[in-house]
Amino acid sequence: MRDTSRDRDTTRDGSLKDWLIDTLPAHGRMFWRLVMTIPLLRKRMNRFMINVAVDYGAMRPTPYSSRPPRGDPNNPEIAGYTSWDSLMDKRWFARYLLPKEMPNLPPIDEVVKLFEVKSSGPTLSSGSTFLFPTFAQWFTDGFMMTVLNDTRQTLTCHQIDVSPVYGLNFEQTNALRLNSEASGKKGLLKFELLDGEAYAPKLYNSDGNVKPEFSVLRPPLLFEDYLKTLPASEAKRLKAAIFAFGGERANSTPYTAMLNTLFLREHNRIAAQLERENPSWDDERVFQTARAINMVIILKLVVEEYVSHIAPMYFRFSADPAVAGRAPWNKPNWMWIEFNLLYRWHSLCPDRFEIGGKAYSGPDIIFNSGLLPEVGLSGLMQAASDQRAWELGLFNTPDFLLHVERASIQQARANKIASYNDYREAFKFPRVTRFEQISDDPEIVEALRRLYGDVDNIEYFVGLFAEPVMRLGALPPLLKRVLAYDAFTFVLTNPLLSEHVFNENTFTKSGMALIASTGSLQDVLNRNVPAGKQARKITMDYGGAK
Amino acid sequence: MRDTSRDRDTTRDGSLKDWLIDTLPAHGRMFWRLVMTIPLLRKRMNRFMINVAVDYGAMRPTPYSSRPPRGDPNNPEIAGYTSWDSLMDKRWFARYLLPKEMPNLPPIDEVVKLFEVKSSGPTLSSGSTFLFPTFAQWFTDGFMMTVLNDTRQTLTCHQIDVSPVYGLNFEQTNALRLNSEASGKKGLLKFELLDGEAYAPKLYNSDGNVKPEFSVLRPPLLFEDYLKTLPASEAKRLKAAIFAFGGERANSTPYTAMLNTLFLREHNRIAAQLERENPSWDDERVFQTARAINMVIILKLVVEEYVSHIAPMYFRFSADPAVAGRAPWNKPNWMWIEFNLLYRWHSLCPDRFEIGGKAYSGPDIIFNSGLLPEVGLSGLMQAASDQRAWELGLFNTPDFLLHVERASIQQARANKIASYNDYREAFKFPRVTRFEQISDDPEIVEALRRLYGDVDNIEYFVGLFAEPVMRLGALPPLLKRVLAYDAFTFVLTNPLLSEHVFNENTFTKSGMALIASTGSLQDVLNRNVPAGKQARKITMDYGGAK
Repeated sequence: MRDTSRDRDTTRDGSLKDWLIDTLPAHGRMFWRLVMTIPLLRKRMNRFMINVAVDYGAMRPTPYSSRPPRGDPNNPEIAGYTSWDSLMDKRWFARYLLPKEMPNLPPIDEVVKLFEVKSSGPTLSSGSTFLFPTFAQWFTDGFMMTVLNDTRQTLTCHQIDVSPVYGLNFEQTNALRLNSEASGKKGLLKFELLDGEAYAPKLYNSDGNVKPEFSVLRPPLLFEDYLKTLPASEAKRLKAAIFAFGGERANSTPYTAMLNTLFLREHNRIAAQLERENPSWDDERVFQTARAINMVIILKLVVEEYVSHIAPMYFRFSADPAVAGRAPWNKPNWMWIEFNLLYRWHSLCPDRFEIGGKAYSGPDIIFNSGLLPEVGLSGLMQAASDQRAWELGLFNTPDFLLHVERASIQQARANKIASYNDYREAFKFPRVTRFEQISDDPEIVEALRRLYGDVDNIEYFVGLFAEPVMRLGALPPLLKRVLAYDAFTFVLTNPLLSEHVFNENTFTKSGMALIASTGSLQDVLNRNVPAGKQARKITMDYGGAK
Repeated sequence: MRDTSRDRDTTRDGSLKDWLIDTLPAHGRMFWRLVMTIPLLRKRMNRFMINVAVDYGAMRPTPYSSRPPRGDPNNPEIAGYTSWDSLMDKRWFARYLLPKEMPNLPPIDEVVKLFEVKSSGPTLSSGSTFLFPTFAQWFTDGFMMTVLNDTRQTLTCHQIDVSPVYGLNFEQTNALRLNSEASGKKGLLKFELLDGEAYAPKLYNSDGNVKPEFSVLRPPLLFEDYLKTLPASEAKRLKAAIFAFGGERANSTPYTAMLNTLFLREHNRIAAQLERENPSWDDERVFQTARAINMVIILKLVVEEYVSHIAPMYFRFSADPAVAGRAPWNKPNWMWIEFNLLYRWHSLCPDRFEIGGKAYSGPDIIFNSGLLPEVGLSGLMQAASDQRAWELGLFNTPDFLLHVERASIQQARANKIASYNDYREAFKFPRVTRFEQISDDPEIVEALRRLYGDVDNIEYFVGLFAEPVMRLGALPPLLKRVLAYDAFTFVLTNPLLSEHVFNENTFTKSGMALIASTGSLQDVLNRNVPAGKQARKITMDYGGAK
């Protein structure tokens, strides 16, 4: 935990209104508990809080994107003005602010050093378990998707479509579905039983080639490059355990594979229930309806468990579809580059992972999907819930992830992202005028001063993580404000939550009841593991402060 | 004109509110003129009228589409329930109502007879010139686009993108653009001068093959089939005159080619002006900005000239982007099959075309693009404005277009469109209970009774055209109500009109001024023809009743 005895110059923190919104809800636990016991009051407060969060952004529809002139990927420029083609061509990230030349940027090597753990050791999170960054990674990997060889481009469909489970397109979805005529069961995703529990089938044959049935899937990102750095036997061992997932990042660690497996099981459980309840339905309808229910459950957990964990307050959000329904900000989604960049939360990740009494290093878990069936789904979920995360911020990224921070800085520069102060202004914070307004940590203040000289030179990506984490929340103020706008506008405008879709016609009566009765990852886990393997306490909250 | 002495049973016409909305604005010309002279009142009334029109629909976002199960085009079924894939897969038309089996439909041959002109001759429009259906055809051909071999599918990008001028995608747009390095001019569309005036270049080489530079364009729809029915010399003559347009339907007649040519000239005129005013801009920026300005001018004329002509009232609409800005109905567009079907206005088309003192038959004008340069743009625009349209309705389609009515009925049936009464109910009209409530024309009443037996059996497509045209308007009541919802939601939600885009950053100061000062097709024409060739009076209003 940070040393809170240090001082920060708070004169540029914002208006009294900002203070009321950002600070008050992190005090008065009893009051907020009371608010949440009165349904109508809770509903109104939920709508108010979400609208306040969204108003700080208010940038839809987004006029700018990172598209080069004529959409030519060989051109490193960004058009930087609005055109019909730029408004239509969603291969490129949208952006809040126009591209900006930043002439005085320090060398990248120097900036990466801002992320290295201090010699005094890492700062631990005061309130988050490792389940929190795990969920963030798995969930956002499904819809943020940078194209690695041109980081102005994205693979996303600009919706939260749970592509790690279902694939990016119809062909991939079909490859992941179980043949209903052969199996005699309707609507299932392919699975294989290990130790009596369901996991996704393996992606590779014993000869190390992708199974023909999965040839349309994207294999794990950068996996082949990584294998080349390993002894052949170790490479073979890792490869044999890789799952056939819809998402190219879902095998990154056993933890991401764990969440993918959880929702694969939940899909199949829902499908079996729908088949029982609707004997006249064909495979297609069972599959589609199970998917829709599973997706809405995930969206609900995103708001009610995950975003509520992030929010620096005692009040917990509800995923009420009516909030977005007729709101003026309910406009088409388009993934923003700034949203993508702010989600590089590698400093939350520890450098050792404690699983079932054993400790693993970073390299021990990379692409090590085999660890999941070894420990079991429930066991790994519990391990992630028991372990404390590190704290988000500078000087706190474990060594084995520093290359990802480097790639993020490069991506921000390739996209000509404006300055930290420009984004403070865009999101209605006062621009900072002194380094001491950014952080209470003298080492951060000095390092920024040395590297950037002037507060206006600080990069967005660095500034985001230089601010201290808010009380009760997991994030610093600017990052939290940008994220809140992005997250609510993305989640609540999902077409499955829209007024003509979110009903029994789409989900069935029992599907609606299932959605209503699911409030946590623990609920989902415990109905998808054998009796006796239920987990003790699945949570993102460390220490129970909230 | 219809014989207004006939009676109709008006007991199912709707509520008092409906009557006030549908009927009052068609009376009191002096009052409405006064309203329009007071800017703030006009603005408020405009917003009110548009919101009233949109409220009759209120179906966004649309949960249903004509997608077959698993998106398989070989499956003639329509899934008929909402799924993630159906919500994402916009190759298929959206639909207001679920597919419905209509077991008692009469043979198509019998239904086509409902469209044949009576032996007593056609009914002429009381208030529309032929420019009105010409504009409707050209404009809607650009964004409704049925796929002919599977009429549940569409080629549209679900936006009004003026694809007849600019093509359906980036490759087509690039094929239509003039090489700026070779020409020394920026941002132009390819053109060729005939008699000193600009037209699109020809699509075919002298050998009858598509020029290689235009190989990515879609050639005129059904043109090759049509040529096979002609003598070789005639086929060759037609082919030689076909223009290289972005739209596969823009060469259908010289009239559609005329409007395409008008906006090609306007694009190039705007580009030249932008190049003069912004010497630092490259070809791409000049092109994109000229396109954006040209598109907004078209959108403006759609609302202010075309929709105002359709509307059964003295009040004229304004294309005020603020009306849609924060409105709850400002949601993503998706082309509805019912919207597509209602636009089959072939009964508006005469069977003879008067151009420069000469008369042409239907077959004389089909694919006869050569007639346009022969008469000249101004001459043909004037001819379309001078000639009276026929009236929309049953028993009024010229013989040479009856096969299109047949195709429309087939398309409605392939899409399993529900009944006329179902759509009356969906758009908040009372269901009719007697044939006499539909039409005042005894021949129509008797024909419907004989073919359908029960009013609930009447098809949507037939019912739309069976009702009489409204006073001062060009359309019957149900058709007008569905159209008004569709048209306003499509036009006003165009991204170019959105709050962060509709400004000088996108269009430049002079572009905004040009948009503001353009109020009619005549304005556009007169700045795009040589001095002395300005047209006398370009109008959709016949007889000046409005």
